Amino acid sequence: MSRAWRRLAAAPQAFLAAPAVSATAFGLKPTACSSRDKAKAAADKQSVFWISGSSQGCAKTLPCKFDHYGGVIVSPDGVPKEEGNFREMLASSLQEWEMQQKRGVWLHLSIEKSSLIPIATKEFGFEFHHAEPDHVMMTKWLPKDAPNTLPANASHTIGVGALVTNSEGHILLVRERTGPAGRSGVWKIPTGMVDAGEELHEAVVREVKEETGIDATFEYFGAFTMNHGGNLAHEGKSNIFFIVKCKALSNQIQMCQSELTDARWFTQEEWDALPFPEKGSLWWEINRSALAPEAVLSIKELAWGSNRPDMKRMLYFPLKRSAL
Amino acid sequence: MSRAWRRLAAAPQAFLAAPAVSATAFGLKPTACSSRDKAKAAADKQSVFWISGSSQGCAKTLPCKFDHYGGVIVSPDGVPKEEGNFREMLASSLQEWEMQQKRGVWLHLSIEKSSLIPIATKEFGFEFHHAEPDHVMMTKWLPKDAPNTLPANASHTIGVGALVTNSEGHILLVRERTGPAGRSGVWKIPTGMVDAGEELHEAVVREVKEETGIDATFEYFGAFTMNHGGNLAHEGKSNIFFIVKCKALSNQIQMCQSELTDARWFTQEEWDALPFPEKGSLWWEINRSALAPEAVLSIKELAWGSNRPDMKRMLYFPLKRSAL
Repeated sequence: MSRAWRRLAAAPQAFLAAPAVSATAFGLKPTACSSRDKAKAAADKQSVFWISGSSQGCAKTLPCKFDHYGGVIVSPDGVPKEEGNFREMLASSLQEWEMQQKRGVWLHLSIEKSSLIPIATKEFGFEFHHAEPDHVMMTKWLPKDAPNTLPANASHTIGVGALVTNSEGHILLVRERTGPAGRSGVWKIPTGMVDAGEELHEAVVREVKEETGIDATFEYFGAFTMNHGGNLAHEGKSNIFFIVKCKALSNQIQMCQSELTDARWFTQEEWDALPFPEKGSLWWEINRSALAPEAVLSIKELAWGSNRPDMKRMLYFPLKRSAL
Repeated sequence: MSRAWRRLAAAPQAFLAAPAVSATAFGLKPTACSSRDKAKAAADKQSVFWISGSSQGCAKTLPCKFDHYGGVIVSPDGVPKEEGNFREMLASSLQEWEMQQKRGVWLHLSIEKSSLIPIATKEFGFEFHHAEPDHVMMTKWLPKDAPNTLPANASHTIGVGALVTNSEGHILLVRERTGPAGRSGVWKIPTGMVDAGEELHEAVVREVKEETGIDATFEYFGAFTMNHGGNLAHEGKSNIFFIVKCKALSNQIQMCQSELTDARWFTQEEWDALPFPEKGSLWWEINRSALAPEAVLSIKELAWGSNRPDMKRMLYFPLKRSAL
């Protein structure tokens, strides 16, 4: 995998210097006719550069932009719906991009244009890169003498578990209706998935509210772990699971009937007496790491820098608990 | 999104009780003919249950298994290559699954069978769920009176940055060849992407070695942050970036020419004098969090429990630095 691309996605630090090539930029209109020299000159000056295949005498190539990694990003709106037209334009486009010594080609096909997918795969050697409900992103690596260095798809899911205590020090546990935990009938802490775009400390508060109706506030993070097992929806992916200590603002449980069969407050003695998770196991340690640690993960919000005071991010950082 | 499914992926704790429905289980052979009662009875007893459409008088339905969420998982190997055959089998299968009040249908189509994709989308209303280079996973939600509760695709990428010091307390910095950081020419710490299936503390050691040839050992984690900007390869996804303190075992830099234009050791004074990252900014705090913190994130390996002593996971937990 491309170290350069991997770094791009890995190190948001790099984005301080220039905006990344973003899917949202697809809305830009073509600004010039494709030609090797003009494209190169423009690409040297600006982050992305739209070239048009349908105007200014450059018929039959797909509208696209070039990135700073030698990549070609086809404009989704510029992809014709009609199969014969698509075949013809893609053929001449690939010929031109190969001449220009381009590297990776990115082809975003909306679900309405799915009849073009077999053409892209069978006739032009495109592969799938990733997909969301309404589109598939396909790629083709052009260099014959260099390995494919395009970055991989999203690789992880993120989970959070809430260790919620109330003013009496009782702990909130639930029994799930379905799935493995439902079948085994264990009492467990409320857990949930973090959505892309969501902060960890907000996701956990949302999950507690959705499952139990309890209003809770974030206190700090304890430990976390990774699970590489994957599952049907996340084949070959890993999951990072964070434990989050929360304080309940209310005691009255309003259980989500479709998700849970039971939910109640446990005293610490009752919790300790439960067979699951087994004492000394990973999950037991994770739960306990949020209850009486010497150090925790805390959060604060910081700006990227004085040139971007509006662009704030949460910093999650280790802290002695006594400093909280 | 389904809370139950989200919990499944979020809470590996649940897997202690029973194995998840996994794509690797696709290799199982059909064990019985499809029939509502038999399938239900079997599904109640075991985790997954294969039904065959091509034998025992049940012609024209696709081989599949049922999961404990009311889902139907079509066997990839049982999907016919021929379009007419696929159309006919999928039509009668959907009719049967609707009668059985099944909920989500999972259809894994290999790239060799991409001519079936437009049939699934246009004629049967399937959507994309996720894709990897050689296949696309499609889904269809059957209930007309219930919202789609299938879990979303993988949501995050994970990055690591290495704060590597040598025996003299010097810090390893690099200049990248391409991308935004390459164009701005900043000196920065080595960073990289964590692969699915890889541990954070191993990924960072690998990246340092690949970029600079330096052998380093993991010491501890500092802070981390999330970036929701996404990019072309990870549209709509978030990135979690961890800073990792490492100790160099060697001083001699062997720079990766294709990735970097420069790499060298900086004294702490030289590092402090650099304009990037700006003092007080998020990235400055992240870097500094790994240098002289009162608390850090440490790691240890633990088993899931006595019933699975072979199944070990890394626990990442906050610790007073003095305890290291």
